[in-house]
Amino acid sequence: MADAVSTQSRPAVIGDSEFDRDTAVTRRAGEPGVYDIDLSAGWTIINALNGGYLLAVLGRALADALPHDDPFTVSAHYLTASAPGPAVIRTDVARSGRTLSTGQASLFQFAEDGSEVERIRVIASYGDLDTLPDDVRTSAEPPVMPPAEQCFGAGDAPESAPPVPGSSAISDRLHLKLDPATLGWALGAPSGKGEMRAWFGLADGRDMDPLSLLLAVDALPPTAFEMGLKGWVPTVELTVHVRCRPAPGPVRVSITTRNLAGGFLEEDAEIWDAKDRLVAQSRQLARVRLG
Amino acid sequence: MADAVSTQSRPAVIGDSEFDRDTAVTRRAGEPGVYDIDLSAGWTIINALNGGYLLAVLGRALADALPHDDPFTVSAHYLTASAPGPAVIRTDVARSGRTLSTGQASLFQFAEDGSEVERIRVIASYGDLDTLPDDVRTSAEPPVMPPAEQCFGAGDAPESAPPVPGSSAISDRLHLKLDPATLGWALGAPSGKGEMRAWFGLADGRDMDPLSLLLAVDALPPTAFEMGLKGWVPTVELTVHVRCRPAPGPVRVSITTRNLAGGFLEEDAEIWDAKDRLVAQSRQLARVRLG
Repeated sequence: MADAVSTQSRPAVIGDSEFDRDTAVTRRAGEPGVYDIDLSAGWTIINALNGGYLLAVLGRALADALPHDDPFTVSAHYLTASAPGPAVIRTDVARSGRTLSTGQASLFQFAEDGSEVERIRVIASYGDLDTLPDDVRTSAEPPVMPPAEQCFGAGDAPESAPPVPGSSAISDRLHLKLDPATLGWALGAPSGKGEMRAWFGLADGRDMDPLSLLLAVDALPPTAFEMGLKGWVPTVELTVHVRCRPAPGPVRVSITTRNLAGGFLEEDAEIWDAKDRLVAQSRQLARVRLG
Repeated sequence: MADAVSTQSRPAVIGDSEFDRDTAVTRRAGEPGVYDIDLSAGWTIINALNGGYLLAVLGRALADALPHDDPFTVSAHYLTASAPGPAVIRTDVARSGRTLSTGQASLFQFAEDGSEVERIRVIASYGDLDTLPDDVRTSAEPPVMPPAEQCFGAGDAPESAPPVPGSSAISDRLHLKLDPATLGWALGAPSGKGEMRAWFGLADGRDMDPLSLLLAVDALPPTAFEMGLKGWVPTVELTVHVRCRPAPGPVRVSITTRNLAGGFLEEDAEIWDAKDRLVAQSRQLARVRLG
């Protein structure tokens, strides 16, 4: 359904979209660096808020707190699971430089007695992507994957089919089309390879920007599914490097896991834009249950 | 010279070695979570302290401050360059869980007026590597490189040769043998590939442990040298995942850069132990000067 909406109505724009409204933070009067937000239930997977959505919320607060607008490198440690509802973000500026500034942010929610419980703690360095030189000397190549029309999203399953495992509220907000080569898990035949690839866009047609890249690196099904594992794969730590402002249009997200050991795995994500530029790299450490 | 010393005298042991003495931190009386250290000039490259040495110092303080001993994932943002001499580390525990605990640490030095200047800020999650299950399902393979005897260190240059660029005090503390395939830069003929590989050990023969892995991920010459670039490549952010306690003996460090763009590059490091296990992964974002 989301697909139909995104292609037939007028696309949303950066600054006026579901993603922008749901990540908007409000400065708390009289408390510099403190922000309030009502976390939206629209970005949940099963009952938990997506870690990339939460990272974008923290990234939004830091863009306000720091003198630079663009996240260059953001390191997040996930402490406790977040739920839709009120939250407060407390920021701290560590250093303001000419080309880079560094700060930290913590997201808190509230226990039954009203006390704050920390959900995520982040350190990030921000800059201005538009001031970087155009030089590119890269050996990285875009992922090999079919065009979006030959990939599959949550809306492509026949109505008689059981719901895709992990399909959730967030599915309606994303235009996510998975490479059939990494979709075996959904058909009960995982490939055994630690790979997951998809075309990614926002369902309302809003183009990508550095903040929505923070969402995109953690929005695909876990590679663990293609490795034959099931269940929750909670992120311990996630670091994103934004390397370039993305061009308009959908992006390709390619995630690779090489080392599953001791109940942990890494997920390395690359995001490529419509101009074949590597616009973001990320790595996360996550826990898995080994059957 | 360091090679001769390390192979002929009795090797140092974990807990009683150059590395342990130079990363030892002292709890400050009456100020919980605050540590003092005199940063050793023995770990400098040219005049700056090595970023991996500093990360190990912070890792040591967090191992004391947190209820768990082993760094699982450590994210560091480098704010200002550190120099040998007095420093203070301030730690804060974010969460103490049963299997993982998370904290942060900042390293400060002192301005001429005595005020504290922050050098590095770190968030880290610690656990106990010895409690992890033995399951390994990895597609990662050790780097292809010649045995250490066919690799080259700072001590292998003939006395008539000009000093290897970047050779410094830290060279005496490390048993570092570079793969000839990634040594073109030292001979004026860089390969053009973003690769750097070496056998790595501590010169006094101390075996590796999780803390010295934090040093090892940032102790090789920059990949930028093999890409034909010169000069300082300062780290903006460095995240290390320690995946396994290293076996006794030297480790292999393999570093790859895929994307040099806009004046920044990433360095991805893997460390493999003598039992062919992937014991650490790291990624850093660093700045380069584009000719």
